[in-house]
Amino acid sequence: MLLKKNIPLKYVFGKIKYEILLVTVYTMAISTLYYRFDLTFISIPISVPMVLGTVLSLLLAFRSNQAYDRWWEARTIWGAIVNDSRTLTRQVLSLMDANYQSEEMQHFQERFVKRQAAWCYSLGQSLRKTDPVKGLDRLMSRRELNYVMKYDNVPAALLFLHGKDLKEALNNGWINQYQQVCMDETLSRLCDSMGKCERIKNTVFPATYSLYTHFTLIFFILLLPFALIDVMGFMEIPVVIAIASSFMLIEKMGINLQDPFENKPTDTPVTTIARNIEKDLRQLLQEQYEPQEEVLEPVSRYYVL
Amino acid sequence: MLLKKNIPLKYVFGKIKYEILLVTVYTMAISTLYYRFDLTFISIPISVPMVLGTVLSLLLAFRSNQAYDRWWEARTIWGAIVNDSRTLTRQVLSLMDANYQSEEMQHFQERFVKRQAAWCYSLGQSLRKTDPVKGLDRLMSRRELNYVMKYDNVPAALLFLHGKDLKEALNNGWINQYQQVCMDETLSRLCDSMGKCERIKNTVFPATYSLYTHFTLIFFILLLPFALIDVMGFMEIPVVIAIASSFMLIEKMGINLQDPFENKPTDTPVTTIARNIEKDLRQLLQEQYEPQEEVLEPVSRYYVL
Amino acid sequence: MLLKKNIPLKYVFGKIKYEILLVTVYTMAISTLYYRFDLTFISIPISVPMVLGTVLSLLLAFRSNQAYDRWWEARTIWGAIVNDSRTLTRQVLSLMDANYQSEEMQHFQERFVKRQAAWCYSLGQSLRKTDPVKGLDRLMSRRELNYVMKYDNVPAALLFLHGKDLKEALNNGWINQYQQVCMDETLSRLCDSMGKCERIKNTVFPATYSLYTHFTLIFFILLLPFALIDVMGFMEIPVVIAIASSFMLIEKMGINLQDPFENKPTDTPVTTIARNIEKDLRQLLQEQYEPQEEVLEPVSRYYVL
Amino acid sequence: MLLKKNIPLKYVFGKIKYEILLVTVYTMAISTLYYRFDLTFISIPISVPMVLGTVLSLLLAFRSNQAYDRWWEARTIWGAIVNDSRTLTRQVLSLMDANYQSEEMQHFQERFVKRQAAWCYSLGQSLRKTDPVKGLDRLMSRRELNYVMKYDNVPAALLFLHGKDLKEALNNGWINQYQQVCMDETLSRLCDSMGKCERIKNTVFPATYSLYTHFTLIFFILLLPFALIDVMGFMEIPVVIAIASSFMLIEKMGINLQDPFENKPTDTPVTTIARNIEKDLRQLLQEQYEPQEEVLEPVSRYYVL
Amino acid sequence: MLLKKNIPLKYVFGKIKYEILLVTVYTMAISTLYYRFDLTFISIPISVPMVLGTVLSLLLAFRSNQAYDRWWEARTIWGAIVNDSRTLTRQVLSLMDANYQSEEMQHFQERFVKRQAAWCYSLGQSLRKTDPVKGLDRLMSRRELNYVMKYDNVPAALLFLHGKDLKEALNNGWINQYQQVCMDETLSRLCDSMGKCERIKNTVFPATYSLYTHFTLIFFILLLPFALIDVMGFMEIPVVIAIASSFMLIEKMGINLQDPFENKPTDTPVTTIARNIEKDLRQLLQEQYEPQEEVLEPVSRYYVL
Repeated sequence: MLLKKNIPLKYVFGKIKYEILLVTVYTMAISTLYYRFDLTFISIPISVPMVLGTVLSLLLAFRSNQAYDRWWEARTIWGAIVNDSRTLTRQVLSLMDANYQSEEMQHFQERFVKRQAAWCYSLGQSLRKTDPVKGLDRLMSRRELNYVMKYDNVPAALLFLHGKDLKEALNNGWINQYQQVCMDETLSRLCDSMGKCERIKNTVFPATYSLYTHFTLIFFILLLPFALIDVMGFMEIPVVIAIASSFMLIEKMGINLQDPFENKPTDTPVTTIARNIEKDLRQLLQEQYEPQEEVLEPVSRYYVL
Repeated sequence: MLLKKNIPLKYVFGKIKYEILLVTVYTMAISTLYYRFDLTFISIPISVPMVLGTVLSLLLAFRSNQAYDRWWEARTIWGAIVNDSRTLTRQVLSLMDANYQSEEMQHFQERFVKRQAAWCYSLGQSLRKTDPVKGLDRLMSRRELNYVMKYDNVPAALLFLHGKDLKEALNNGWINQYQQVCMDETLSRLCDSMGKCERIKNTVFPATYSLYTHFTLIFFILLLPFALIDVMGFMEIPVVIAIASSFMLIEKMGINLQDPFENKPTDTPVTTIARNIEKDLRQLLQEQYEPQEEVLEPVSRYYVL
Repeated sequence: MLLKKNIPLKYVFGKIKYEILLVTVYTMAISTLYYRFDLTFISIPISVPMVLGTVLSLLLAFRSNQAYDRWWEARTIWGAIVNDSRTLTRQVLSLMDANYQSEEMQHFQERFVKRQAAWCYSLGQSLRKTDPVKGLDRLMSRRELNYVMKYDNVPAALLFLHGKDLKEALNNGWINQYQQVCMDETLSRLCDSMGKCERIKNTVFPATYSLYTHFTLIFFILLLPFALIDVMGFMEIPVVIAIASSFMLIEKMGINLQDPFENKPTDTPVTTIARNIEKDLRQLLQEQYEPQEEVLEPVSRYYVL
Repeated sequence: MLLKKNIPLKYVFGKIKYEILLVTVYTMAISTLYYRFDLTFISIPISVPMVLGTVLSLLLAFRSNQAYDRWWEARTIWGAIVNDSRTLTRQVLSLMDANYQSEEMQHFQERFVKRQAAWCYSLGQSLRKTDPVKGLDRLMSRRELNYVMKYDNVPAALLFLHGKDLKEALNNGWINQYQQVCMDETLSRLCDSMGKCERIKNTVFPATYSLYTHFTLIFFILLLPFALIDVMGFMEIPVVIAIASSFMLIEKMGINLQDPFENKPTDTPVTTIARNIEKDLRQLLQEQYEPQEEVLEPVSRYYVL
Repeated sequence: MLLKKNIPLKYVFGKIKYEILLVTVYTMAISTLYYRFDLTFISIPISVPMVLGTVLSLLLAFRSNQAYDRWWEARTIWGAIVNDSRTLTRQVLSLMDANYQSEEMQHFQERFVKRQAAWCYSLGQSLRKTDPVKGLDRLMSRRELNYVMKYDNVPAALLFLHGKDLKEALNNGWINQYQQVCMDETLSRLCDSMGKCERIKNTVFPATYSLYTHFTLIFFILLLPFALIDVMGFMEIPVVIAIASSFMLIEKMGINLQDPFENKPTDTPVTTIARNIEKDLRQLLQEQYEPQEEVLEPVSRYYVL
């Protein structure tokens, strides 16, 4: 969940502390060999790692871009889920025929809107491979909960219940045929968002690519001390560590971004987003019923005309 | 607000004046050490910072592209808001049934169109974290203003009022069922644009990435004087400043572009856009009522046929 | 208007002739200093401008890509305008109920289609900041022209007239409710295209970015003669000019492409496109009325069955 | 038409054989001057062409990407044409009311579907600037052919006939109002695809860009032998040829890909695609009438209920 | 099928084992010539392969990006197929009028949903050029199977049967006109996905581009030992192998990714996806009939009101 603006240095370097240690020991060993045992022939020209550096840049740039795209796409999908949840709520609350403004219809609207909030939680939890129905009991009736728990794909079952409710609303005359089709399209968009999340979750980044990048990086770091020892002496130790850290951090960043639903600090904040959606929907729902009197009055003055 | 074509040099370099000062002092210190105290062994070959320069270019190119994409996406979303505001106004003014062309319907249309202008201001202000209802009193009635102020998300509440008004218009027979669904889709698009702005606002650019870039940049600048001192002498001071400035300005540019709703000179000009929308909508609204007589006459000649 | 396939060399280099002159004089001055006054210490190693060259490539690549994207997007929007103009014409001519095929409806169709052609001219002219109603008198009645001239945004007013005409057509029974909504969606797409053009027109390319690129380029060219003087002697003059020209031409190209509605030889050919649209629409319109008899006859044979 | 997987070497190098010859002669001349006449001062350091090489890579990468994008977009548009042709056929054959399943309606369906196949051929031929009605006589009646030949834009006229036929079908009661609007949207998508093809065809790749790339390439190749002569001797001849060929082939590839409707071996296979569409549509059409009895029987058992 | 997270090293290097062998032998031969026969003049400076390396990086980056885009687009299309299959099922099960909830309609729904699962298998198999109807007998009746087997394009025939069933459902009064159009749009999206898969399958990656990349790569590897022999001695053998492997693996990766429907381990897992779709659809279908009693009861309590 990339929400904090300030990330402690400790956290950043903590991720690669063992790697940094290894690089330090390795570079010191090479330097010692060179100066202590006078093995000066092990020095190589710096152009050799530079060729490898070009390949590596190419690989890391490619990987960073694709990983960022996956991460940003995941964030965009959840943005669309926010939008469509609000749209669905607006449609449920404002398209329904006011002539039927009965208690029964209020129950229907409340159940529908709360189930939409439940869908968001459920989707987030099933993407993170945790219990998809955890905490849904405060948003749904026991009966519906039991029904959806029989499904492998709980969010899909919730959308299916939405669809059934729309049919019921049509049969009750609360919405007309165009409105049903219009709201069904909103359901289809939600279904699309759900499928897109699953696609990102279930498609690993081409593993061979990650592997090549990793090998090239290791090989580059192994060569680096030989190339710098001649020109920099013991000064090379901090330089090698700095260059190696830069490359390793870029690789780590790519690894973190490429899987945005893995319950890691950098993933998509699905729970936070779902909580915000619930807050928004609840407010629309409450205001709909509580302050309705004072709001609808000026509007309804048109009726008396 | 990137509207001026000419940006004073002072503004550009004012952003990095402390950094430039630091670099100058640092480079002069190194030069002094080298020539005054003859510490010639501190010189390193220029290929060392060149390797780092490649990584840095990779990081800055990546960051510039993503930051520009965020900035351009923000601008595109506000462009869509302009379009959908106009479309909504055209639909409100031209889809409604002329047979009902009563004073009451005129009030309805005026209220609706002005509320749309208010929505634009309100969205811009809430994105910039300023008071979302400031200045809306000249566009909305006190009663509606009180209603929306109860919501955390004022623009969402305004869209909800739009939806309620559409239901009312349907009940009054001013629009038919298809037109309601068609205009509700315009509301959904506006709801999408709102959610997209919030997504950009609330999703920080991967902070670790910014951090790596910054560290690599600092490290690169620290190494640069050592690499140039041998070949350029005191001439290196302006060269180091120029190279360091180039890289630092690119980094700053990325930082400015990546958060397009932060009330900075380079952000999206939401207030200007909202003002233009208001001007357009008001003109459509006024022309609708005032010059209507002379315009509608030739049109209405078809009725007498 | 990028329509010619062959561009005279004179045109290409004419754009940077003063810059080339300056570079020539500058490089000759450096060479003279070096050889005539034996100031050989001014020579610097070529790796120094190479580091700058990397930054510059990064900046120019970024700028070329974004400028090309703006140019191509502008062209794509006008392509969409062509498509939607044709679609609107097809809908006006083929969706309307043939039972009403009266002279009055013919007038309506002709007025509508010609107004669409007028819209294209008007949009192109207002994007180029020339008179938006120039030449529209041959496509629209005096009365409508007077009406739209009262608006700041003439194309928006024309779309609004489209919308009013659709309402009229619905009231006259020439189109049904679904067809009105369907054609209104075409109007919405045209409204979108208009707004997208305005977005590109009104959003300057991040000015600080252009500035950094320009500074880095100047600085790179200033350093280049010092770096080459030692290894190439007077031969460096053509080489410096050639390298400097390459970079400067790429920068110029970016500047030309990034503002596609500026009445320059490289901009989007809005007038040509509008003329083609008019030709297409007029042909559909004429054929509709003139050769109709011979075409509709075989079709209408189905009626007699 | 990029359909063959194996391309003969002769074809690849045949494209640049004169250029290779010139480069060979030029490099040999330089080598002779150097060794035979001992003009060793003409040698320049390899870093000079390397700076140019960076610019060139930037230019070629930019161009390759944009050219590939044009080519892939052209292919994608024709993919969409395939999809929409099938969709239109499915709609014509399956949306129409079975109660009217008369011979007259069969003629209508056949005429419509064949005209869609004709549209594909016609669009491909007019994009390649060949006769747009060639070979259409086996798909359309003489009368319709005469009608569309009066238009400058034959495919647009065919779509217009589609639109007229839909109106006729509505009037005959074969389709309802929603179905007409739904099929008209398919026509709009086909109209979009047509306009997109014309946009790619009529918009030349920024000519100045191509020119700069070409100049920089020539200049790079001219410098190359001077840079390699010192370090490689006569061995430089194959190396120069190989490097020059690589760059020239990339440039050629870009030129070939950027104009995908030019009747060249690498363009979009519009005729092949149109032929496949015709085959598919014909099969749907035939199966519709011939094996209908055995298929529709089990379905119609529901009617007896 | 890129589903495994851990790929054995043997698999990765197994792909290029012959190439590695050749490179080893070649590099050893060069080294032997150099040291054993003292042919030291064959050494070339490392800048020569570095120029080629820049071109090669450009080519490989271009190719990797385009290949990845094809692979990711293929995956995205199959993601859309998952979504639209679920949407279609939801629509079939929830849009249909409950008043007709007869056994006949249940059969219809079951047949429809199972045919959608069959469509997914069939599309995957025909993309991989295996028998498109293999295994469909457990999902479809013998009669329908015989019908679709007469078509060259079996998935297209299945969609056509979908369309016919929708017409039948409309005639039976199970769905209304808007619902038919709405579900037909889902069919159009499925038809689009099918066409997009065929486009990727049938469009080879520009073959000349692959060829140039391959030639440049070979030439680069041939030059490499000459450039490194002087500075690294026999140490160059592992270095050459490592650099060559990096480049060759990147090329191989591109080749694998660019054709995502070729029955290779890295292609799109069409069978797995189709199996998941079937599981989901079956569950929706079963739950629809079996646990219906307990679920629909609470819902139907609204009817008694």
